[in-house]
Amino acid sequence: MKTIKVGLLGIGNVGSGTYLALEMNCAAIEKSAGVHVEIAKILNRRPEAKRAVDVPREKYTADPYEIINDPEIQIIAEVMGGIEPATTYMADALKAGKHVVTANKAALAVNGKQLQQLAMDNHVMLRFEASVGGGIPIINAVADPLVSNQYDEVLGILNGTTNYILTKMTENGADYADVLRDAQAKGFAEADPTGDVEGIDVANKLSILISLLFGKRILPQDIPTTGITSISGIDISYATEFGYKIKLIAHAQRTPEGLTYSVEPTLLPVSHPMAAVSNEFNAVFVRGNAVDELMFYGKGAGPLPTGSAVLGDIIDIANCIAKGAAFDVQPLLHYDSKMPSLGEGSAQYYMRMTAIDRPGILGHIASTFAKHDIGLQSVMQRAGDNDRKTSVPLIFICYTTERRILNEALNEIRADGYATSIDAVMRVQDR
Amino acid sequence: MKTIKVGLLGIGNVGSGTYLALEMNCAAIEKSAGVHVEIAKILNRRPEAKRAVDVPREKYTADPYEIINDPEIQIIAEVMGGIEPATTYMADALKAGKHVVTANKAALAVNGKQLQQLAMDNHVMLRFEASVGGGIPIINAVADPLVSNQYDEVLGILNGTTNYILTKMTENGADYADVLRDAQAKGFAEADPTGDVEGIDVANKLSILISLLFGKRILPQDIPTTGITSISGIDISYATEFGYKIKLIAHAQRTPEGLTYSVEPTLLPVSHPMAAVSNEFNAVFVRGNAVDELMFYGKGAGPLPTGSAVLGDIIDIANCIAKGAAFDVQPLLHYDSKMPSLGEGSAQYYMRMTAIDRPGILGHIASTFAKHDIGLQSVMQRAGDNDRKTSVPLIFICYTTERRILNEALNEIRADGYATSIDAVMRVQDR
Repeated sequence: MKTIKVGLLGIGNVGSGTYLALEMNCAAIEKSAGVHVEIAKILNRRPEAKRAVDVPREKYTADPYEIINDPEIQIIAEVMGGIEPATTYMADALKAGKHVVTANKAALAVNGKQLQQLAMDNHVMLRFEASVGGGIPIINAVADPLVSNQYDEVLGILNGTTNYILTKMTENGADYADVLRDAQAKGFAEADPTGDVEGIDVANKLSILISLLFGKRILPQDIPTTGITSISGIDISYATEFGYKIKLIAHAQRTPEGLTYSVEPTLLPVSHPMAAVSNEFNAVFVRGNAVDELMFYGKGAGPLPTGSAVLGDIIDIANCIAKGAAFDVQPLLHYDSKMPSLGEGSAQYYMRMTAIDRPGILGHIASTFAKHDIGLQSVMQRAGDNDRKTSVPLIFICYTTERRILNEALNEIRADGYATSIDAVMRVQDR
Repeated sequence: MKTIKVGLLGIGNVGSGTYLALEMNCAAIEKSAGVHVEIAKILNRRPEAKRAVDVPREKYTADPYEIINDPEIQIIAEVMGGIEPATTYMADALKAGKHVVTANKAALAVNGKQLQQLAMDNHVMLRFEASVGGGIPIINAVADPLVSNQYDEVLGILNGTTNYILTKMTENGADYADVLRDAQAKGFAEADPTGDVEGIDVANKLSILISLLFGKRILPQDIPTTGITSISGIDISYATEFGYKIKLIAHAQRTPEGLTYSVEPTLLPVSHPMAAVSNEFNAVFVRGNAVDELMFYGKGAGPLPTGSAVLGDIIDIANCIAKGAAFDVQPLLHYDSKMPSLGEGSAQYYMRMTAIDRPGILGHIASTFAKHDIGLQSVMQRAGDNDRKTSVPLIFICYTTERRILNEALNEIRADGYATSIDAVMRVQDR
């Protein structure tokens, strides 16, 4: 049986999971794929650090180029994360004629175009199943057999930390800060959770999905992104009353006017299959013009789930090498669509504002919405929460409206003093 | 650009969907896959019949061998259904050196082994994404990148008709017969629904999944199969009280003792992601030893969803032809596992029986369970429904028990006259 040697750049969470998944399933892989895959060398700059797997020390090297330039190594898995030096190492590996597998959403979102071009120029493969949705085989599922569809919409729950926090806030009526502390204690959130809770991680993944499904290059920093830090328990309970769950949703949609996209807390109807995606689980929901609705659900993070996706790509490539297949494959990421980029576009929106409790205010606010041609689907006024009862919370859900026009109306409502504050504005997914 | 000619055997629901999906996405396929796919000939024994698509009449032929023996046709899609003559046509096509795509679960469950061997012998591909889960890309997802996992369990909601009926029974508290009539009127159930409601269709699909995931050949007729015809509204409402939804579940699991499998109405905890799969939708849920839980959700039937899966396989093969790739691919279906076949094995079970309403009966029944070492997790006794109040319904959920032993206990309870009837026994999925 042919042995294919692999180099790992990194031995953190994902690297350890890849190593372990191979150890667990080595015999089955040999049987079903007909190749022996060996992780021959591992970049480890801190060989003294404790790792989750027991690796023979002679596999470690502190020099990435000892792996990249090793003529016996044919596949390099980049599992170190971060844009640099990961991008440089991947580029050098591709130039050296190595196939590259990566789990690195940040590097891919920013540098995917150049890396893919390098892979094509050097007749090698660049695979990245683990970069979006961890263990969920979303990339291969939509890129490969489903090329028989044109995709019109994608929704993603792509970050386990934020989904865990929102699930606990919903289940326990707890506030963000308390749940975050609990999540940190349980290892579901990092000590510095910024990249997760501000939606940056999700924006990277959406950027990759947009290239994959819609053929456009939208850099993560150009995606309108709102995290979960300002979601309050009040909004979650109002959403529940209206029949919605609040999730941090990555959304992109092909519309007649162009492509819309955003990462933001979104109200999903409880009957939507994505509304049942709880705790640390992730899911990707797509609409194809032939297949209609599809959803892929699973663990979006964690050493073994993510490692198994990295390993799946490695085995696929190893399989091709063993069979002597040509590697001039069609690129998966596309960047040449002529569709205009519209940012957030139009949607239904949920709004919560604080208004002075005196006659006529609701009428003024409703008239301002009407002036901007914004129709209201639901309105709810509740007795005020503060002691002096001088202000009341007002909740609105409007019909589909351009976000830009909604913002103008809200600014006017605030400027006119009808509302003392606009406390929450969230997208509503209507189907 | 290279043109790949395809022959369709059949132009019913799935054939029309395949034709239409190609028409809709032809340009996109040329762009992303780099080939022009042309459906050149179509087997149609009733050229006068009205079809869902507008096909130039010169493409039609009434002779399958005009397609199978056409030297210009490289790929044949069998979309006629039924075991014969479909199996013979596929075998002859493979022998003639054609790649074969099929949506035919019945033929594949029974004859998959021989067909796959023929494909290997003739160095051509046999693909069958549409045979399980319609438009859901489950076959490629678990067979390809996820070979990096060993699968330990699979659960499937694999029939849209029965899932639609159970959903409406649950939502409306309606009875089976009424919902069936409604489903037939709406086109979700056929005039003769036997194959669907008796679980036969699902058993065919589970047989394929077992070969794919566990490497065993279990013929559909050897899978313990119970349909949905005897589920009553009472069981659905008791299940709801206990926190479960009733679904027709195809289940197989690797246990230390061997492989267990069944198709039967099953109580799923409402928190299980499969419990949210409603109406005509299908889903497949797997547990891998590295990736943990994965679920794939989508439309399991319908011309366009299923047609898009057939077309996906066609494009994949066309792509390989265009690149001159070798077709000595590893087989997807395996049949050589040494695991013992155990049938239903062990599970928790829900039971509803009718007992005479007199003191001591519950004690007797509980003692009989205890004698067979069957522990009870939940017991519920309600006032009787009949006018004379001489009998009461008793509901039990037992801890994990071998089905064989449970049956012995139930037979004894019935023989001893404690229960006048055992009205329902259903598997409970514990996680």
